[in-house]
Amino acid sequence: MEVIRKISLMQKKMEDLRRKGKKIGFVPTMGYLHDGHLKLVREAKRFSDVVVVSIFVNPIQFAKGEDYESYPRDEKRDLEMLKKEKVNFVFIPDVKEMYKEDFKTYVEVMEFQDELCGKFRPGHFRGVATVVAKLFNIVKPHIAFFGLKDYQQYVILKKMVEDLNFDIKIKPVETVRDKDGVALSSRNTYLSEDERKLATLIPRSLILAKDMILGGEEDAEKIKNAAKDFLKSQGITNIDYFEIADPDTLHPIKKIDRNRKNCLIAVAVRIGKARLIDNIVIRNGKIFNLPKIKEEKEKKNKKDLN
Amino acid sequence: MEVIRKISLMQKKMEDLRRKGKKIGFVPTMGYLHDGHLKLVREAKRFSDVVVVSIFVNPIQFAKGEDYESYPRDEKRDLEMLKKEKVNFVFIPDVKEMYKEDFKTYVEVMEFQDELCGKFRPGHFRGVATVVAKLFNIVKPHIAFFGLKDYQQYVILKKMVEDLNFDIKIKPVETVRDKDGVALSSRNTYLSEDERKLATLIPRSLILAKDMILGGEEDAEKIKNAAKDFLKSQGITNIDYFEIADPDTLHPIKKIDRNRKNCLIAVAVRIGKARLIDNIVIRNGKIFNLPKIKEEKEKKNKKDLN
Repeated sequence: MEVIRKISLMQKKMEDLRRKGKKIGFVPTMGYLHDGHLKLVREAKRFSDVVVVSIFVNPIQFAKGEDYESYPRDEKRDLEMLKKEKVNFVFIPDVKEMYKEDFKTYVEVMEFQDELCGKFRPGHFRGVATVVAKLFNIVKPHIAFFGLKDYQQYVILKKMVEDLNFDIKIKPVETVRDKDGVALSSRNTYLSEDERKLATLIPRSLILAKDMILGGEEDAEKIKNAAKDFLKSQGITNIDYFEIADPDTLHPIKKIDRNRKNCLIAVAVRIGKARLIDNIVIRNGKIFNLPKIKEEKEKKNKKDLN
Repeated sequence: MEVIRKISLMQKKMEDLRRKGKKIGFVPTMGYLHDGHLKLVREAKRFSDVVVVSIFVNPIQFAKGEDYESYPRDEKRDLEMLKKEKVNFVFIPDVKEMYKEDFKTYVEVMEFQDELCGKFRPGHFRGVATVVAKLFNIVKPHIAFFGLKDYQQYVILKKMVEDLNFDIKIKPVETVRDKDGVALSSRNTYLSEDERKLATLIPRSLILAKDMILGGEEDAEKIKNAAKDFLKSQGITNIDYFEIADPDTLHPIKKIDRNRKNCLIAVAVRIGKARLIDNIVIRNGKIFNLPKIKEEKEKKNKKDLN
């Protein structure tokens, strides 16, 4: 496994590999890796000859007052994990080389960037689109992998690739969850033990909404209110949004289609220092990112039996 | 010479050439070619194995009310000219494939895009940066050539390439002028015979400013006023701007550096239906885009002698 920190060296290495006909698979990350990232890496290994992982906490996707400085970092641990996965290249650029003092070019995916999280994180998706465009030009992958936990990010980047004609295939990978149903996130490290228990309400609220939809409820407002009431009554009071949206345009929908039921159910809440997001997608009768929750009671029962 | 109209076919061909180790030189144009374009093509031939010219009148760089519909087009003539130059590929994409109905991704080079022409053509440079980013991803060149007549465009695209880490070298090529000093432009075709005579004032106003600067005048305001007075007194009344700016940041300068005299002298005027731009750049004692004007009087004298 080779660790590269210089942009020009990365470009040279990748160009050489492309010339040799190697298929490059790319997994961009902000580090502090968990099993969600490793699932992306394993998917990349399946679909490519050479796997590149980048680790870069991208300052321009954090708004002022957000957690750029405190975002968890542990390069040594990350590298050990990636070595075990037999990753070929890890790209860890320097923030000063990525954003020189007079940096002033941005990529924006209009409309999509203003929905959902875009309403609460000004400039976030502009920062994401810009850094991924940069990384694509540096890593020159044939295929890139993104987790569906960040569903809006996935839709925006797929749109950017299509609109700007990047000759790169975007592969979505389903959310990885802990046993309690909570989606893996580097930001879960911010949670105290009690807060972590609260976080389990997030996937439960999604399931509640999903069950209402599958049960035939078509009124999005009703579903959203039920989910928000559930979250609040159980102790999550700081809800950025609980939204039901078109999975392609990300625009809120009022009435769920009776037959296809296509929709994105997305939630963002704040618990202590952490802003946590999660989602379920229903598309053509298939359900993506569905949480499977091992009930605490079951565990207790099992313990009692042993 | 191969003419390609499909984006995916272009990407495939270019990828194959890159794999074979061929160096791709790219000249993006809006067609209706003149000797300025051909100079770019000849430079491209000098520096690359394979020369690609694109012809595409880019709708998103025209503001409402501008000349997108009436912009001159003559594909047959363009192709004949490029064939004579032994160009390898001509890429002529379809506007509906370049901009699908739900297109919504834009590249912006902040600040630079708001100076000079940016003040008078809202969205113009966003449209330019976006289409060039697209073309770069489609044509995949190693090196791309841009005329210095569009100096602001050149600075913006060089900045875009640097900021977004496109692995592409940008080569500027000096303005080509007619014998009367007027910079070649596809838009010169809009001019009547009388208007064409007026257009010769444009390079003359630049020379006037340049001479004042080389003569030691440091007050930009004085120089700009002198040039504008000259233009107006001679019959060009519709001046978008006559500006003296920093050649790197494009920001107006008030006092010209006594020693280096580095500056961009840039002008934009409207004559009849045409909006015409021109410039001279002084950088480290060198002068770029300097008009050489064959005086009409000289011509007359020569004619008298024959």
